Amino acid sequence: MMYADAHKAASHVSGERLWNRLMRLAEIGATAKGGVNRQAMTPEDSQARALMADWARGLGFSVQQDGIGNLFMRRDGRDISRLPIVTGSHLDSQPTGGCFDGVLGVVMALEALEAIQEAGIRTHHPLEIVAWMNEEGSRYGPVCMGSSVYVGRMGLAEACASVASDGAVLGDELPAALAAVAPAEERDFGAPMAAYLESHIEQGPVLEEQGVQLGIVSAIQGIRWFRCEVTGAEAHAGTTPRRMRRDAGQAAMRMIAAMEEAFTDEGDAIRFTVGQFHVDPGSPNVVPGRAAFSIDLRHPDAALLDTLSEQVHAICQEHRGPCQVTVEQVGGVAPVDLAPWMTGVLDDCAAELDVTRMTMPSGAVHDASNMAALCPTAMLFIPSREGISHNEAEWSEPDACRDGARLLAASLVRIDERLSQ
Amino acid sequence: MMYADAHKAASHVSGERLWNRLMRLAEIGATAKGGVNRQAMTPEDSQARALMADWARGLGFSVQQDGIGNLFMRRDGRDISRLPIVTGSHLDSQPTGGCFDGVLGVVMALEALEAIQEAGIRTHHPLEIVAWMNEEGSRYGPVCMGSSVYVGRMGLAEACASVASDGAVLGDELPAALAAVAPAEERDFGAPMAAYLESHIEQGPVLEEQGVQLGIVSAIQGIRWFRCEVTGAEAHAGTTPRRMRRDAGQAAMRMIAAMEEAFTDEGDAIRFTVGQFHVDPGSPNVVPGRAAFSIDLRHPDAALLDTLSEQVHAICQEHRGPCQVTVEQVGGVAPVDLAPWMTGVLDDCAAELDVTRMTMPSGAVHDASNMAALCPTAMLFIPSREGISHNEAEWSEPDACRDGARLLAASLVRIDERLSQ
Repeated sequence: MMYADAHKAASHVSGERLWNRLMRLAEIGATAKGGVNRQAMTPEDSQARALMADWARGLGFSVQQDGIGNLFMRRDGRDISRLPIVTGSHLDSQPTGGCFDGVLGVVMALEALEAIQEAGIRTHHPLEIVAWMNEEGSRYGPVCMGSSVYVGRMGLAEACASVASDGAVLGDELPAALAAVAPAEERDFGAPMAAYLESHIEQGPVLEEQGVQLGIVSAIQGIRWFRCEVTGAEAHAGTTPRRMRRDAGQAAMRMIAAMEEAFTDEGDAIRFTVGQFHVDPGSPNVVPGRAAFSIDLRHPDAALLDTLSEQVHAICQEHRGPCQVTVEQVGGVAPVDLAPWMTGVLDDCAAELDVTRMTMPSGAVHDASNMAALCPTAMLFIPSREGISHNEAEWSEPDACRDGARLLAASLVRIDERLSQ
Repeated sequence: MMYADAHKAASHVSGERLWNRLMRLAEIGATAKGGVNRQAMTPEDSQARALMADWARGLGFSVQQDGIGNLFMRRDGRDISRLPIVTGSHLDSQPTGGCFDGVLGVVMALEALEAIQEAGIRTHHPLEIVAWMNEEGSRYGPVCMGSSVYVGRMGLAEACASVASDGAVLGDELPAALAAVAPAEERDFGAPMAAYLESHIEQGPVLEEQGVQLGIVSAIQGIRWFRCEVTGAEAHAGTTPRRMRRDAGQAAMRMIAAMEEAFTDEGDAIRFTVGQFHVDPGSPNVVPGRAAFSIDLRHPDAALLDTLSEQVHAICQEHRGPCQVTVEQVGGVAPVDLAPWMTGVLDDCAAELDVTRMTMPSGAVHDASNMAALCPTAMLFIPSREGISHNEAEWSEPDACRDGARLLAASLVRIDERLSQ
């Protein structure tokens, strides 16, 4: 009997209804190559938010909006005093984005709540769908702006001062974005939640590789960004023997090779990427006198990330040879632990629904990274074809979207039950 | 008695006279940082050539010039039917060049001939000083233009069509350059020579490192230029595990590391340089989908250079991992063997004069590379401080310049004797 309502909720999920809504939203900002350009604060973004609010109103849900344009759609619970259980993601896209990144999580949330409603389930807690403002940060930085302002990590004034590359100022465009979903009740920043559960495409290739239907996210990887600069001496490629060279390029490559080897872990959880590499002066017949490269280092474990960061410094010094090297950490994001009891609920519900799944860290940052500071938080991943994302070719299978919505509906019911015991 | 005249010639070399001429020429096109800007075909280049011709005329030498502006200054020998023994280098410089590259070889040639003259030695062959036109190729490509036209590797019309980056055409500037040294007899292209002996700064650090006074060049290294392009797949730095990456940057670095190891020879004669390295798209959080790098590979032995070139192809394929690689040879220069009997004369004379020396290949290309196709050819290197060249900080010690002129004067006398036996 424990999973009766969860099963019932899942059984009312309609893959077709979900997919139709997804394709309807894909028309807003559609690009010629089959993707979308629906950047935050644009008319297309407002149109998508307004459509979502209309759908929610059509189901009898109340609509709230906060001062930065985060949009909340509430189905009331039995107990007016309980905090909402919130699920959703974002509607904005990259300039050449796909039809799934963000929007799928919002559409799945709507489908789950509609299924719960059709199943006649009255939850103890209110259930809310959220569409966070400006997750992508492509037009107005930074990423995850809406959730950052909501949890107080960024001030509203600071967000309003953000300038786009075309010179537009966010604060000037915000009133129109807010008006687009009117009438909406006002939502306070930081209004507490009982739990947050975000569905999102994986944006990576692992679920497809492993042949499982869904991913349950255990943690969001922390990131450390480094900038390494190697100084040697320019020399003539013909007249300078190896023993007398101070080749900054070769020294940099030795460092990178040593790190690549040191960071090869059995579980393949460490992400080590050198995405930028420059040698100077960059002439075929001059031994490089300077080299510079970037390091993007990720792992879900904060302590291990500290250890790996120390190794970055040590390995670069160890392999500099006759050159000098400076290693500077230029940024970072702390790992985020998700609520084990919530991932447990997701896993239990998946077992009940006969959905194959795996537990995995998230390699990308999400609004859930912010929400974990506010309330128990979990994430659910839907497979991405070939791991392609931030690309118009992004794709997830309709069946996978439906399976995700089924698991989401069931898990929301179980989370409500767990929180109400 | 064998080296009597050689000793006599060397004893008349004046280091002071040589240095004064060198410093006088350094005034022509002098830069604020102590170097010179005396690019080919400029008024400064013409001024230097005219001054050199005047000095030669002052010693009673006859002046000849060919159609591209190669300048020959002749001291007649006893036998009018014999071919000239020619020594010299070039007067033009890089835009931010030093006071020694090229010009030292011409000034040493003048000093050697003046010393031979003061010693009262009448050689069998005529002795000629040459100043080749446009060795640097910095304003009008290619390098070694004057000697290339002289030996017929390049046509005069092709040289005249060369266009500078400022739009100037060589053929338009040539008449003024030719007029600058008038009156001069006309010299035919390809007019044969008995031998060619070029003095030049080393442009590398080896002589200074080894603590020897002069270098005797055994061969001029051949060069192979390659362009390698590696194709993998762009991927998200956070969501893509190592096992699923096709990282073009890492593949390229593996190839380079393997070549660096394979090309480490005990004698340190192989020159392997990666001067250009690009990864694409060049974003810190994107696994590079493409990488491209240059290879500059040099060795004085043609057969070994062939073997090394095959290894370049093989090693790149071997280490491509999950990526694709294309390796294209984009250019090359064959190694040039210098005349062993001439390097033998240089070595014998150095021993007679108590000059410490070592035998070494030339890592850079010189006009001697062209002349070796025309007649027996040798080269003499003067140490460069810290190996610095093509740079305003270029420097050679006055004593080293004097030692070089002494060896040159002695060797010219011995070469004349050897060719007259």
